[in-house]
Amino acid sequence: MLKFNEDGLIPVVVQDAKTKEVLMLAYANKEALRKTFETGFAHYFSRSRKKLWMKGEESGNVQRVIEIRVDCDEDALLYIVEQKGVACHTGNYSCFFRKLEGIK
Amino acid sequence: MLKFNEDGLIPVVVQDAKTKEVLMLAYANKEALRKTFETGFAHYFSRSRKKLWMKGEESGNVQRVIEIRVDCDEDALLYIVEQKGVACHTGNYSCFFRKLEGIK
Repeated sequence: MLKFNEDGLIPVVVQDAKTKEVLMLAYANKEALRKTFETGFAHYFSRSRKKLWMKGEESGNVQRVIEIRVDCDEDALLYIVEQKGVACHTGNYSCFFRKLEGIK
Repeated sequence: MLKFNEDGLIPVVVQDAKTKEVLMLAYANKEALRKTFETGFAHYFSRSRKKLWMKGEESGNVQRVIEIRVDCDEDALLYIVEQKGVACHTGNYSCFFRKLEGIK
């Protein structure tokens, strides 16, 4: 039984099927997950825009989902995807393109 | 500037430096992140036990952190680690050991 948080969301780690690079961390609600299963393309819930979105619906940078995994606690998901174009809105392939050097 | 959520936490994707497998998703507060930088070993904040913990402090399955990356929105981290033993308390190497076949 998947555990959605108090906002009805579950975090989704997104990994490139070929390079195994971690591309992004996003959130899904039940509808986004259902749409992902139905269509084979990654859907998420945008916390800022408060709506369901298909990744790449505007940019064309869609993610075909090869497999979905769930973690031991059933409170996190892993989408293993074929990324079209780039994953990050900055133009970088992965959203995790910067090294963190320290904390203040 | 890192964005911690209303509970003072930031999600951390943990990836194996050698295999590139995604091992787990955990949460850090500022102190956990500081300890991680100071010691070179992955520290997190346990939401269930409400305390800072060093991964492997009891099991011995520590994670030496090779690199920390931050995402474009600065609200998620990626620890790239050398995993000693296994990452999952179930005995599996990764917490994401199960495929999700559908949603009800």
